[in-house]
Amino acid sequence: MTIVALLTDFGTQDIYVGVMKGVILGIAPATSIVDITHAITPQNIQQGAFALLNSYLYFPAGTVFVAVVDPGVGSTRRPLVARAGDYYFVGPDNGLFSYIFADAGSVEAVQPDLAQWGLTGLSATFHGRDVFAPVAAHLATGVQLDALGPRIETPVYLPMPRLHINANPIRGEVVHVDHFGNLVTSIGGFRWTDDETLSLDPRWGSLTSPRQINPATVQINVGNLRLNGIQRTYSAVGQGDLLALIGSNGWLEISVNGGNAAQQLGANLGDPIAVNIS
Amino acid sequence: MTIVALLTDFGTQDIYVGVMKGVILGIAPATSIVDITHAITPQNIQQGAFALLNSYLYFPAGTVFVAVVDPGVGSTRRPLVARAGDYYFVGPDNGLFSYIFADAGSVEAVQPDLAQWGLTGLSATFHGRDVFAPVAAHLATGVQLDALGPRIETPVYLPMPRLHINANPIRGEVVHVDHFGNLVTSIGGFRWTDDETLSLDPRWGSLTSPRQINPATVQINVGNLRLNGIQRTYSAVGQGDLLALIGSNGWLEISVNGGNAAQQLGANLGDPIAVNIS
Amino acid sequence: MTIVALLTDFGTQDIYVGVMKGVILGIAPATSIVDITHAITPQNIQQGAFALLNSYLYFPAGTVFVAVVDPGVGSTRRPLVARAGDYYFVGPDNGLFSYIFADAGSVEAVQPDLAQWGLTGLSATFHGRDVFAPVAAHLATGVQLDALGPRIETPVYLPMPRLHINANPIRGEVVHVDHFGNLVTSIGGFRWTDDETLSLDPRWGSLTSPRQINPATVQINVGNLRLNGIQRTYSAVGQGDLLALIGSNGWLEISVNGGNAAQQLGANLGDPIAVNIS
Repeated sequence: MTIVALLTDFGTQDIYVGVMKGVILGIAPATSIVDITHAITPQNIQQGAFALLNSYLYFPAGTVFVAVVDPGVGSTRRPLVARAGDYYFVGPDNGLFSYIFADAGSVEAVQPDLAQWGLTGLSATFHGRDVFAPVAAHLATGVQLDALGPRIETPVYLPMPRLHINANPIRGEVVHVDHFGNLVTSIGGFRWTDDETLSLDPRWGSLTSPRQINPATVQINVGNLRLNGIQRTYSAVGQGDLLALIGSNGWLEISVNGGNAAQQLGANLGDPIAVNIS
Repeated sequence: MTIVALLTDFGTQDIYVGVMKGVILGIAPATSIVDITHAITPQNIQQGAFALLNSYLYFPAGTVFVAVVDPGVGSTRRPLVARAGDYYFVGPDNGLFSYIFADAGSVEAVQPDLAQWGLTGLSATFHGRDVFAPVAAHLATGVQLDALGPRIETPVYLPMPRLHINANPIRGEVVHVDHFGNLVTSIGGFRWTDDETLSLDPRWGSLTSPRQINPATVQINVGNLRLNGIQRTYSAVGQGDLLALIGSNGWLEISVNGGNAAQQLGANLGDPIAVNIS
Repeated sequence: MTIVALLTDFGTQDIYVGVMKGVILGIAPATSIVDITHAITPQNIQQGAFALLNSYLYFPAGTVFVAVVDPGVGSTRRPLVARAGDYYFVGPDNGLFSYIFADAGSVEAVQPDLAQWGLTGLSATFHGRDVFAPVAAHLATGVQLDALGPRIETPVYLPMPRLHINANPIRGEVVHVDHFGNLVTSIGGFRWTDDETLSLDPRWGSLTSPRQINPATVQINVGNLRLNGIQRTYSAVGQGDLLALIGSNGWLEISVNGGNAAQQLGANLGDPIAVNIS
C-alpha cells in the first residue's frame, strides 16, 4: 500500500479535498490517503513549505506528497513532480517543496505531460483534481518519474525566512502560530545533548561548527518582552506563564504553560525574535 | 475495496462522524472511507444536494455515497437507498440526492428495512449511526439493492435553484460560497470550446440547442456591480480585482484574484446574478 | 486490518495529526486509521473522556484507541496502555480513559518502555508523535500488552461530573455542547421501553433498581426555564421550539427543533440541570 499524503489551502468546508481522493482511489485503489492539513492560509506558499518540511521525515519511504497552495493555478507556472530523499512530491512549481529540497540535499524533478497524465477536460482553476491527484495516483501505481515528462533543471526556490545565525543576538522571526497559540520561530536545529546543554546545528543557514549553548543563560526577546532561559517542558514554569522551549521539530518556540502565547502577546507571523547568547 | 464516501452537516467537532466510521468498518472491514465534507450548513438540504452533484462523477464506479442532512430525523420521513448511474446512495428521502438523480437520468430506490439492516436499539436522533452507516456497509459487502427493502417509486425531489436560461439576461443565483470566497452560481454547463468561445449546455433547465457565447462581450450583474467578460483564469485580471470565470464544475463563478469575492462584495447565498449576452 | 482510532485536542490546522498517521503507517502499514475528533477543547480531559465513552462501543473489537489531551506532556505523568473490554487504549495516564474503565468494569494497564517502543530523539512536547503513535502501531501489529512495559496497578481516575441520581429532583450538569447546539447532560442511562415509558438505569452512580419514568409528567429545569415532558423526536415540538429528549447515547439532552439550544439559552458547559419526576 502506497501512502499519498495531502496538504492544501482548500479548507474542509468544500468538496475539493474529497473529490481529489475520489480521483486518486479511482486510479490507485490500494492507496492509503493521509491528510496532513488543509488549513494552510489561502495562497501562503511559505507556510505550506514550512509545514511540509516538518512533516515529511515522519512518513515511510515511498510516500507521495501532494501539496496544493497555488495562487498561479491556470497561469503559466509549471506543474512539478520530484523525488528527493526517499519521497515523491507532486504540486505546482512555485517553491512549495523547496524547503524540503534544500533539506534533502538532492532533487530530481520533471514536468508532467498533462495531455497524457491529467484528467480530460482539464479545468483552469482546479489542478488539485485535474492534474496533481491523477499524477500522484499514477506514481503510486508504480509509474516511473521520468515517464511522466521532461526534466525540470531548476525548480523554483522560495526565499528563506529571516535568520541571522552567525551573530549575537541570533535573529529570526515567527513562521507559524499553531492551534494552541505556540509561536514557532525560524531559529531551528536545536537539540538537547543533556539536561544542561543545547546544541545548535541550524537547519537553515550554517555555522562553521555546531554551537553549544547553556540554556540557562540565554535571553529571548519577543516584542517588548524578555524571557530568561530555554526550558525543557511546559511544566518548568507556572500555569499561565510564558516560556521559551525547543519544539518537537527542533525550532525555538514561545509558549504559555496551559495557555495561548499568540493571544497573550498579540503576536503574529513575521514578528522578529532575538536570542542573546551570553 | 469498496469506497464509502460521506457528506453530512455534522461538523467535525463531535464524535458523530468517527462513530459512523466505526460502525461501517465493523460490518465492512475492507472499506475505504472518504470524507467529502461535514461542513454543510446545518439542515441545508439544497447545499448538500449541490455538493453531491459536483462530487459524484469523480469517484470510481461502485462508490457508496452516504449523506446525512436530515432535519426530519426520527419523524416519518423515509430512509432511502438508491442506485443511479454506476453509484449507490444512502440517506434520508428528503431530496438530498435528487440533483444527482436528475443528472443521472434514471434511478432505482428502495426503503431499507430497519429491523433487519439497522442497529439494534435504533435511536430517534442519530440515523447516521444507526441506519445509514450499517445499510451502506452492508451494500459495500455486496448485499443487493432489492434485498434491502421494498421499492420507493417516487423519491422526494428538491426544487431547483432560480434559473432562467431561455431569456436574455440569463438569471440565476448564488448557490455556494466556498472557502476562498468564490461565489458559485446556479448557471452551469459552460465549457470552453477554444480560447475565444464558450458553449453553454445547461446542467439544469434546457435550451433547444447548446448556445455559443463570445465571452468577451458578456456582461455579468451581481449586486450593484457589472463585470465585463468571462475570463479563463484568475491571473487574467490584476491582484485583488474581481472577475467572472467558469469554475471547475462548469458553473459561472464570481471571484477575486488573490482575494475573497464574498467578503469584498458582501454577497450571500441566494443573491441574484444576471448574465447579458449581447 | 486493525483499526486505530484517534481523539486529540490538536485541531486540524497543524501537521500534528497527519504526522502521527505517518508514524503509525510506517510501523503498521495495514492499519485503518479513523479520526474520532481533534476538536476537544485544549487540555479539557473531561470532555475527551466523555467523547471516548460515547464512541468506543461502536468500533469493532480489537480497535486501538489513541487519545491525546495532555496538559502534563513532558512532566512526570506516565504514559499508559490499557485493555478494557475488547479494546485497547493508548495515551497519557491522566484520566482520559477512566470513564471507559469504569464503564467496562475491568482494566489491565501497563506503562510502555519508551526507550524500546518510542521514537528515538523523544521530544518533551509531542508524545502523540513520539510515544503514543508508535506504541499504538506496535499493538496493531500484534505486540502483546505485557510486552510493552510494567503493570500500572492504579491508573488515574477523573472525578465524575455532578450527578445526584437518588433524589428528586435528579441533579446533573451540561457536559457537552455539540455542533448543532444541543446540550448533552450528565444524566444518562435512559432508554425508551415503549412510546409511553422511559427506564433509567444510570450510566454513572447507581439506583437500587432501574426506575420507570412517565416522560409526560417530568419537568426539566435549565437556567430560568422549565420544560414539560421528555419527547421522542425533534419534530414533537414546533420549528424553533425547545425540547428535552434522550440523545443517541442515552443522555438527557436539551435541544431546539431546527435551531441551536446553546445559543438560544446562552448555556455553557457546567450549567446545572434538574429533573423533577412527579
